[in-house]
Amino acid sequence: MRCEVVAIGTELLLGQIVDTNSSWIGEQLALIGIDSLFQVKVGDNAKRMEDTIRHGLSRSDAVICCGGLGPTQDDITREVIAKIMGVKVVRDEEIVSRIRYMFEARGREMPKNNLRQADIPEGASIIEEMPGTAPGLICPVDKKVIYAVPGVPYEMQEMMRGTILNDLQKRSGQSAVIRSRVIRTWGHSESGLAEDLANHMSELDNTGTATLAFQASGVEGIKVRVTAKANNEKEAEKVLIEEEKIIRDILGDIIFGTDDETMERVVLDILQKNKMTLSAAEYLTGGILATRMTALDAKMVTFRGSLVGAHDKEYLKIPGEKRAAAAAQSARANFKTSVGIAALAPEENEDYPPGTVFLAISMQGVRKSKAITLPGARSRLRSYSVISLLDYLRKTLLYEM
Amino acid sequence: MRCEVVAIGTELLLGQIVDTNSSWIGEQLALIGIDSLFQVKVGDNAKRMEDTIRHGLSRSDAVICCGGLGPTQDDITREVIAKIMGVKVVRDEEIVSRIRYMFEARGREMPKNNLRQADIPEGASIIEEMPGTAPGLICPVDKKVIYAVPGVPYEMQEMMRGTILNDLQKRSGQSAVIRSRVIRTWGHSESGLAEDLANHMSELDNTGTATLAFQASGVEGIKVRVTAKANNEKEAEKVLIEEEKIIRDILGDIIFGTDDETMERVVLDILQKNKMTLSAAEYLTGGILATRMTALDAKMVTFRGSLVGAHDKEYLKIPGEKRAAAAAQSARANFKTSVGIAALAPEENEDYPPGTVFLAISMQGVRKSKAITLPGARSRLRSYSVISLLDYLRKTLLYEM
Repeated sequence: MRCEVVAIGTELLLGQIVDTNSSWIGEQLALIGIDSLFQVKVGDNAKRMEDTIRHGLSRSDAVICCGGLGPTQDDITREVIAKIMGVKVVRDEEIVSRIRYMFEARGREMPKNNLRQADIPEGASIIEEMPGTAPGLICPVDKKVIYAVPGVPYEMQEMMRGTILNDLQKRSGQSAVIRSRVIRTWGHSESGLAEDLANHMSELDNTGTATLAFQASGVEGIKVRVTAKANNEKEAEKVLIEEEKIIRDILGDIIFGTDDETMERVVLDILQKNKMTLSAAEYLTGGILATRMTALDAKMVTFRGSLVGAHDKEYLKIPGEKRAAAAAQSARANFKTSVGIAALAPEENEDYPPGTVFLAISMQGVRKSKAITLPGARSRLRSYSVISLLDYLRKTLLYEM
Repeated sequence: MRCEVVAIGTELLLGQIVDTNSSWIGEQLALIGIDSLFQVKVGDNAKRMEDTIRHGLSRSDAVICCGGLGPTQDDITREVIAKIMGVKVVRDEEIVSRIRYMFEARGREMPKNNLRQADIPEGASIIEEMPGTAPGLICPVDKKVIYAVPGVPYEMQEMMRGTILNDLQKRSGQSAVIRSRVIRTWGHSESGLAEDLANHMSELDNTGTATLAFQASGVEGIKVRVTAKANNEKEAEKVLIEEEKIIRDILGDIIFGTDDETMERVVLDILQKNKMTLSAAEYLTGGILATRMTALDAKMVTFRGSLVGAHDKEYLKIPGEKRAAAAAQSARANFKTSVGIAALAPEENEDYPPGTVFLAISMQGVRKSKAITLPGARSRLRSYSVISLLDYLRKTLLYEM
């Protein structure tokens, strides 16, 4: 089965927004074994949109249209699809009342334009995710189908996950499943990983049970993606489990997580499991660590706080690495947490190689610090410092607790 | 003149790499007044590449192909273009010796595959930028033209800037320049802005001096892009200045900046101009504000610090909005700054509508706070709180200082 993606919006062609939607959709389609052989960007122009969608339908079984569902006059996806279906658009009163309710709940008047979002091509069905915004559409055209989703990534993804991917898989009638697992590493180069895994990859070339691919993800580390194609979910899962075991044996503790497990997720999990709390001194990292931790722990149950900036200047006189240790201890004391961590840079009068960062941990029975050197400009150095500090804490919690 | 972009590579369709090249090219083309009405991604497949490029040539005057010029077997752009031109590829000995030299200079042996990069369709000319790598190509097809550039962004951009944009402008025979300006707003809905500007937009439809487009950018607010087409740089600039003035008159102080001026940039500029310093209490915003401010002010000269988490629990007993005021004052006192700001959420035992956020500012002669309601899940609510708080500070600095 083939599914084409049409990203709609003049701003995409003008480079004002990068089209990340079709990449994301392409990835999801690949995971359920559906080919996406063409992805097209087209502007908000009725004729060119119509031509592009028709052309897509002529060579694919399904077309996903992203964007052009908003309330303004240049949002014309609904009308163009209706024309291709050979039907009219009709106003759906239930959607009207949902949109009206959304505005009322915020105490705002609904601009009249917003009613356009309740216009639906006759014969189309509505995607139920994200009620109150522009609804997504499933529009049958003979034996093929056009889907319409908003260009807002979050809304589009909800509709893809909740409805469209299932609908596509049902239509495709195919049973082969493709599953993949991402193994996340920190601390090795891509070529180093490739060398370590070279023998195993040649084995896989022969057996064909799975494929491995590397993906350098900057401050998120380097990902090894294992992809297995099998007759059913269970077999695919079995291959992934076996592969993960083999790769863990080869790479060891540079693996910090799998799939969506970020470094901060992994560290938070270890802390929660041990009923520990964490705080940080962020004189170098400027709040990045807190932002990441509180994104997962919004109520700050485990991550209790962070001090950004030199609130307490006492220990700024302490030299080098020891200053980081003092800062970690101070955070721990101020926030009354079981663990305090800190990342600091050398002061201007201290003589260290460029990219030097001091990392420190303070917890029951452990007071440690180290100096590392990181590549890159200050903005990346700050982010690299955050993940390095969390990885330092991860290994400390694993081995010294 | 119309120029289509074809991004080549299966990894683009699979979402392993996001195609940023065609966005960049689209932006450059717009700036020299060339329309890019379609941009297509296609995999490394000869038949589909050929169809896509031919289709592009049928509706545009030029096609720029990005990618597929590398040394491996799946890099087949050269061969596909030769087929469309109806010619053979021939090995260019000068390029062979350049590539050989590049390897020798690095003390490495040249893999035989790399010779493929010296294969050129007969009748094509070579783009001289980036010698020693895969050369870019200019391939005439009747009165139209296909360009081929590498997928590596830096190499592609060098070739675009050095050769292709000039070549296209020469072919187009036109001298018109297109310039645009982004006007950034916070506090109004997209449809609200559209209504406010509706009259002026109809005027522009008649005069044709400029066009306006809206772009909702989530927590960055809504952007109004003004685009002017004129005979020369100076005239275009004049139109932009006039348009900015008109739009400022209509929209007033919901405009916080233009082009790359983010809200944090604007607030920092006002503070710096007045030699003021800033600190924050981030119990709700979890370090997001500090992350944004320190990204611009890494040495923390103006933004002195942020307290993430309830370090000081004293005033957690103070009810509602007043708690935010106390937190702002406490940040100001602790960090000894001229301004302290805070965003807080209601405590669980307080009765406020969902999405309520308290904002507060403490500075010389000003102690103020307000309650607002924001849409969205907690992660977005935090980001919306940051920009709302900064906008509150911006207006306070503008009017009460």
